[in-house]
Amino acid sequence: MNEDSNSIGLVHSKRAHFDAPLPLACGVDLTTWDLVFETYGALNAACDNAILICHALSGHHHVAGFTDSDRPEETLGWWDNMIGPGKPIDTNRFFVVGVNNLGGCHGSTGPASINPATSRPWGADFPVVTVEDWVAAQARLADYLGIHAWAAVVGGSLGGMQALQWTIQFPKRVRHSLVIAAAPNLTAENIAFNDVARQAILTDPDFHGGHFYEKGVRPERGLRLARMLGHITYLSDDQMAERFGRRKRPGAGSYGFDVEFEIESYLHYQGDKFAGFFDANTYLLMTRALDYFDPALTENGHLAVALKRAEANFLVVSFTTDWRFSSARAREIVNALVHNGQNVSHVEITSRHGHDSFLMQDAHYHAIVRAYLGNISS
Amino acid sequence: MNEDSNSIGLVHSKRAHFDAPLPLACGVDLTTWDLVFETYGALNAACDNAILICHALSGHHHVAGFTDSDRPEETLGWWDNMIGPGKPIDTNRFFVVGVNNLGGCHGSTGPASINPATSRPWGADFPVVTVEDWVAAQARLADYLGIHAWAAVVGGSLGGMQALQWTIQFPKRVRHSLVIAAAPNLTAENIAFNDVARQAILTDPDFHGGHFYEKGVRPERGLRLARMLGHITYLSDDQMAERFGRRKRPGAGSYGFDVEFEIESYLHYQGDKFAGFFDANTYLLMTRALDYFDPALTENGHLAVALKRAEANFLVVSFTTDWRFSSARAREIVNALVHNGQNVSHVEITSRHGHDSFLMQDAHYHAIVRAYLGNISS
Repeated sequence: MNEDSNSIGLVHSKRAHFDAPLPLACGVDLTTWDLVFETYGALNAACDNAILICHALSGHHHVAGFTDSDRPEETLGWWDNMIGPGKPIDTNRFFVVGVNNLGGCHGSTGPASINPATSRPWGADFPVVTVEDWVAAQARLADYLGIHAWAAVVGGSLGGMQALQWTIQFPKRVRHSLVIAAAPNLTAENIAFNDVARQAILTDPDFHGGHFYEKGVRPERGLRLARMLGHITYLSDDQMAERFGRRKRPGAGSYGFDVEFEIESYLHYQGDKFAGFFDANTYLLMTRALDYFDPALTENGHLAVALKRAEANFLVVSFTTDWRFSSARAREIVNALVHNGQNVSHVEITSRHGHDSFLMQDAHYHAIVRAYLGNISS
Repeated sequence: MNEDSNSIGLVHSKRAHFDAPLPLACGVDLTTWDLVFETYGALNAACDNAILICHALSGHHHVAGFTDSDRPEETLGWWDNMIGPGKPIDTNRFFVVGVNNLGGCHGSTGPASINPATSRPWGADFPVVTVEDWVAAQARLADYLGIHAWAAVVGGSLGGMQALQWTIQFPKRVRHSLVIAAAPNLTAENIAFNDVARQAILTDPDFHGGHFYEKGVRPERGLRLARMLGHITYLSDDQMAERFGRRKRPGAGSYGFDVEFEIESYLHYQGDKFAGFFDANTYLLMTRALDYFDPALTENGHLAVALKRAEANFLVVSFTTDWRFSSARAREIVNALVHNGQNVSHVEITSRHGHDSFLMQDAHYHAIVRAYLGNISS
């Protein structure tokens, strides 16, 4: 079977509108809000074959297949290698749902949406949302779709945190949780990198306190720096050495501050591309949600206590060269579940691709996900 | 013996003016230039007890003792715990020289100096200087001081690269080289971090293409981000977890983008302090010198070939938690020297302080430096 040829094909996003207020962790009630989502495959009669895909920092609802967008970064779904007919998350069997989280910049209610109280864009006044808020909103979407319980909730990185939080927040509504390249909270170093990225945005003169939409400008300098820095933490040192090393660009040797090394060229390209379309307020919100996530906090730091109410079965996947969320962090989750006698499998995948490994086509990794989902009932 | 009480005391900087042109690697001849330096202890009659201290990215000539400056960051020398009467680098025995490198912002000729060709500050037109250029300039200073050969050249980080380069560039003028917390070149990841820091400065609207002096502004936003990022790479993940962890500031819980976590407060403090006094053009120059340093480049990557002409004895020191220049990188230097049958000792110090360990008071580390220098003849 050639997985790559098994595309879902052209997909169209859908929109769910909610008028029942959503109480957020910060104390604000979001009175009216939309979620943009995509679905692949068919919901069966028992409504028990649905899988929710949670996205990471810069992700969105367009997970698989392709769109007719003229924005190239949106054409192919960000996890198309994982999801489709015959792929590890097999849409011949499962009804797969991708959703853009609240605060996002791909169609769901977020900082660029109109604040009903002011009839102007929310901007920096958009409430700070948390992983718990996202899960609560996703549960409303499940209601909307007629899904009482997900066969599985799946996510990588910040998405993995949502997959974990689902099992705590709605223990009866998730049968399997696939927590990939994630951690039970951020370390000081993780927060530090987020802080530098946020400060780059917040101190960009074009940020205008988050109300740049009305000024006709975008804080692209700050977003660009944030993304460049992010990319350093997504790759591994070894992989960077292999891909770029100390290789210079053609025409290097100028003894100046233009691009001299291949790695500089790569980072500038990634930074420029991202700054051209991503929303700065969304970047702030997503990184803050990462900072705040800490399910053990209310249990005096005892993750096992926090996870005790989960009824799901777990697959935890980590990657050898991921230094953003290392295998040691994944094992904290695994150890807490084992301590509780809960059902968990942990696989550490040997991969050169650092944190980004969870997005990569890797035979062993994909076989693990395929096998796990192949064994679940629906 | 209490090392801490053995301060050199009040010190004054000196200035050496040079009119003989200095040909730089970039092709420019620096026609007239100054080096600011300090000396501690006394040069003996044979002029064979002199030790040169090379500084790192943000360092300078004021290495030990204290000044009467009203700028607190300049009051105590940056390596005062290492250098003084009875200290590991013992000024009762050695004549110790600290120098501010060309391109610096602490008195030596640099971007804020007047360009004789234009009678305006050099700014971004200051030539890009390399480690080789610095060593050549330091050799002129040695001539000026009547020192034919250094008993030792000592440096940490970028300073360690200079200590290494001295042995290649002037094999007969350095008897011992102490290469501390250094590497034979930067990795792609190292360059990537430098690149983000530089881009923060270069894209700060107050940078004005490097000619901000005449505009009455300083690119403090960019410098601040550069320093915050630098600090992440100077500390270790473990040390950050221990010092800051996920602890919140008093009054945290605002669900906003002000400082919430202790680590944010620390980084902002360090960034603000640095941005208040350091020169942005100097930061660019120092990071580019780091990027370019690669003594093996002209030998097809064979470091052992590059080091073959060295006649010095070497002490290479690395630190277990240094992830900027890891022990593995130090071993590349050691292995090259061993391959050549050259005289080298390597000590890996167990330390929690990451790259910054080379600046810390650590009994084992200081005992090693003391013992090594105690055994050299002069």
